[in-house]
Amino acid sequence: MQKLRVIPLGGLGEIGKNMMVIEYGNNAIIIDAGLMFPESDMLGVDYIIPDMRYLLDNRDRLNIHGIFITHGHEDHTGAIHHLLDVVDAPIFATPLTAGLLEVKLRQNKRTTGKLTTFKAGEVIKRGPFEMQSFHVCHSIPDCVGFGIKTPVGLIVHTGDFKFDQTPVDGWTTDFARLASFAEQGVLALFSDSTNADRPGWTPSERLIDEGFDRTFRRAKGRIFVATFASLISRVEQVTRACMNYDRKMAIAGTSMSENVAMAQKLGYLSLPEDLIVPLDRALRMPKDKVVFMVTGSQGEPTAVLSRLSQKRHNTLDILSGDTIIMSSHAIPGNEVMVQRTINRLFQQGAEVIYDAVEQVHVSGHASQEEMKLMLSMVRPKYFIPVHGELRHLHSHARLAQNMGIPRENCAVVENGTILEFSKDNMKIGERYPGGYVFVDGAGVGDIGPAVIRDREILANEGFVIIILAINQYGELMEQPGIISRGFVFLRESEELFEMIRGTVRRVVGKSRNGRRHEEVEEAVSKLIFQETRRRPMIFTHIHEVVAD
Amino acid sequence: MQKLRVIPLGGLGEIGKNMMVIEYGNNAIIIDAGLMFPESDMLGVDYIIPDMRYLLDNRDRLNIHGIFITHGHEDHTGAIHHLLDVVDAPIFATPLTAGLLEVKLRQNKRTTGKLTTFKAGEVIKRGPFEMQSFHVCHSIPDCVGFGIKTPVGLIVHTGDFKFDQTPVDGWTTDFARLASFAEQGVLALFSDSTNADRPGWTPSERLIDEGFDRTFRRAKGRIFVATFASLISRVEQVTRACMNYDRKMAIAGTSMSENVAMAQKLGYLSLPEDLIVPLDRALRMPKDKVVFMVTGSQGEPTAVLSRLSQKRHNTLDILSGDTIIMSSHAIPGNEVMVQRTINRLFQQGAEVIYDAVEQVHVSGHASQEEMKLMLSMVRPKYFIPVHGELRHLHSHARLAQNMGIPRENCAVVENGTILEFSKDNMKIGERYPGGYVFVDGAGVGDIGPAVIRDREILANEGFVIIILAINQYGELMEQPGIISRGFVFLRESEELFEMIRGTVRRVVGKSRNGRRHEEVEEAVSKLIFQETRRRPMIFTHIHEVVAD
Repeated sequence: MQKLRVIPLGGLGEIGKNMMVIEYGNNAIIIDAGLMFPESDMLGVDYIIPDMRYLLDNRDRLNIHGIFITHGHEDHTGAIHHLLDVVDAPIFATPLTAGLLEVKLRQNKRTTGKLTTFKAGEVIKRGPFEMQSFHVCHSIPDCVGFGIKTPVGLIVHTGDFKFDQTPVDGWTTDFARLASFAEQGVLALFSDSTNADRPGWTPSERLIDEGFDRTFRRAKGRIFVATFASLISRVEQVTRACMNYDRKMAIAGTSMSENVAMAQKLGYLSLPEDLIVPLDRALRMPKDKVVFMVTGSQGEPTAVLSRLSQKRHNTLDILSGDTIIMSSHAIPGNEVMVQRTINRLFQQGAEVIYDAVEQVHVSGHASQEEMKLMLSMVRPKYFIPVHGELRHLHSHARLAQNMGIPRENCAVVENGTILEFSKDNMKIGERYPGGYVFVDGAGVGDIGPAVIRDREILANEGFVIIILAINQYGELMEQPGIISRGFVFLRESEELFEMIRGTVRRVVGKSRNGRRHEEVEEAVSKLIFQETRRRPMIFTHIHEVVAD
Repeated sequence: MQKLRVIPLGGLGEIGKNMMVIEYGNNAIIIDAGLMFPESDMLGVDYIIPDMRYLLDNRDRLNIHGIFITHGHEDHTGAIHHLLDVVDAPIFATPLTAGLLEVKLRQNKRTTGKLTTFKAGEVIKRGPFEMQSFHVCHSIPDCVGFGIKTPVGLIVHTGDFKFDQTPVDGWTTDFARLASFAEQGVLALFSDSTNADRPGWTPSERLIDEGFDRTFRRAKGRIFVATFASLISRVEQVTRACMNYDRKMAIAGTSMSENVAMAQKLGYLSLPEDLIVPLDRALRMPKDKVVFMVTGSQGEPTAVLSRLSQKRHNTLDILSGDTIIMSSHAIPGNEVMVQRTINRLFQQGAEVIYDAVEQVHVSGHASQEEMKLMLSMVRPKYFIPVHGELRHLHSHARLAQNMGIPRENCAVVENGTILEFSKDNMKIGERYPGGYVFVDGAGVGDIGPAVIRDREILANEGFVIIILAINQYGELMEQPGIISRGFVFLRESEELFEMIRGTVRRVVGKSRNGRRHEEVEEAVSKLIFQETRRRPMIFTHIHEVVAD
């Protein structure tokens, strides 16, 4: 019998850019195609996608029967157009996820013809794989995980999940299907590890209703609710609070408006007829009769909330007495921007309600007790924690071991590691490159460590370029030119630049032709460090002219 | 009667660089002189100090009777040499704080002759001010706050504090003195707001003993404990665990060694005779007999832990089976670096214990119930929350109002705001500049928003400089030179640079003399954006040559 191979290309050892290849012989499917946002020291990078070299190298061999997307978040969908550049295969998704994928494919000028929708719970057969989808709760509607029946055995992939018993849309995780997996016998479980170091049980979305209720009751002026543009259930919760407290809702921000419209169209959100009012009408209404839904809960500089906090929005501004609800949690790396936004809103006289002071957000991922429940229900032979930094994968593996899964049956591996399964064995194979592919503007993967390192020096120290015209006798023919940015405040540094020119004149007078560049750069570098204790990038451009 | 004026120059609207001026007529004292570490977008800034313009502007008028330092942390001491450049006054501190100040003054080549020590609880009279010091618990020994008796009334400044009933050194906060203030009648309380959005009571340091005990019991290999170099009490706690589990201690990192030596010398730390072993001896001992104390718990790239996590330490490395205890909490802005360090340590096969998975760190600052206790004990007429971002100051003020202090008696103000007190009044006056003064290398305050903005562009996009030699007829005399860094990977972009040269040649041929710079830059900028969707900084340097 042929081997079953699972190759995670993203999401292991990091939070984001989830992608996984599952193959039996030369037949394969792919689960998810996500992106990841850059960390603060990945300078100038727009976003990061999985390294798809494995797919490229095996392009001729593999027959890819489908790309299955678990849900509509960017870290599971955002690299879809990059994946389609490498792989030609149909895409399968639930209706809301497919709607969001359609928008994304159109934005990136790709065909949407390959999109096929299915309903959570349906079974899709593709090649030797039988994909048994099951609904899971998360922080966007219509999420699924997959039981993947293969000739070697049944693999379960949870997708992002939590066990919310009272989700806003009333649609709980599909316990029946999960239980049925255990009956079929599960070879391996791949389970979401994002919150693996949080003890207990992630609170239900329903808890937020109480936080909103207390906040709405106290608010005397206008209310702004900032959340993720994709958090459709949060819009529904704000709707309820609006109805209880007789307020209308206005939506500021294109992405949120579009998502709400799509969710309404597809039936995932039902809003009372006259609840939503246009922004300009909302602005003329009494202050205690209106709620503004806005984007920018991550402190993103171009989103509505951040512009509001800096008085840079065209039509909206913050008034003293406004209440602002931050209904979100800072994604790692965004903490500073989020806190700065909150402080600026306070500075403008608003009352800001955030998760430390009121229950206005809950996580969309399982905590430890839910992870244990998943393990208990699915009862896998092998366990592979996915979706998380290494510390989360390790914590999750420890949980599984505490529940009786032998240590050697748990695989804590990183992107690119090839896992090979037979009916009664798991082998951790060689590792393919699984690092970061940076996307910067139109360039995919052309920015590497060398460029980032240069950007880092430029970011911290700036540069100084010295331009010289030198004749055939080695004499300076005119004043050295200097171009500098990011080093010192130019208008107050004329004295320093005069010293640099003096040094250059002195060094050129004595320098040998072959080493002139180096000698000038060394001397200027030394002078600058002495005077400023800084080390900008220094270049010399020598222009050779012929004297009469 | 003359007015009492309080001018906070740092620590209000931010966490860090604490400094406050208190003046009665022309007599003044200063409390603390701290620095702040830059946030991730303050590119290339080494540290930030308070804006001291108020002191400069009032230098002739004011008679400054003393600089009183509450404790030895950098955010209260780190700007002392900058302050001494502006103000000539004696410095008062408790013995450990004075010891740390001495080191700092020596490092910065300043005289230590102005240092006077006092014991917590002592009263120091300077000019019209009677400084009644009182011991507080925090995360470094020998911390104090001050009751400042003035002709107008008694002001209480808490410094950084928590109410730990079982601190490691057994020295609780001085409740008696705090109660005595209420008897004297307190005009105004200035109280630490750092944790103002944390409900409850900050756990006692003693709790960590249990976390250490569980971890030491489980550990089969070597143990590394990473913490702040100044966290002397943590060293004492590790000592106890070492003695219980028969391990020796080795200290890696100069700053921690020095601090431990100083604390021992001054009697703040008593270690058993043969507990500490040199690093090289520790490396030859059995793995279950040794603990390494290391710095770098904030992920600082040059500290021991970060070097270990990247296999860049000279003598130490991480072995599979090592246990690493992160006995600290990430300072805002450091989260990403700390998490990355933890992940890298896992990657090297270590077991990493951090505050999410075990009780191995507690905060040094009061939580809400402690803040309330402080307010209840001191019973001030006016309340000014200090030490915290605006959101913390607001939360703290809300607490005070809930306890019955009238809203108009609470002042939430930012750095530089002049507060004027009479016996029965508080007036919020004008605001002096209270922003950031950046220190970069030898430069103090010479890096401003313009330079930071340039650094930001360079960081994200890099630069392209085009150097042209043009004769009197407007003709290019040689190939355009290009210098570029941080923009694209040079070795793979020759084609793009050839296109740039072509564009330059075309534009120069048609351009008018006066607008040549602009026309070249516009054309190159347009070409680059079309080809790469990036916007590097672009400069042209035109060199005029005379053709025969």
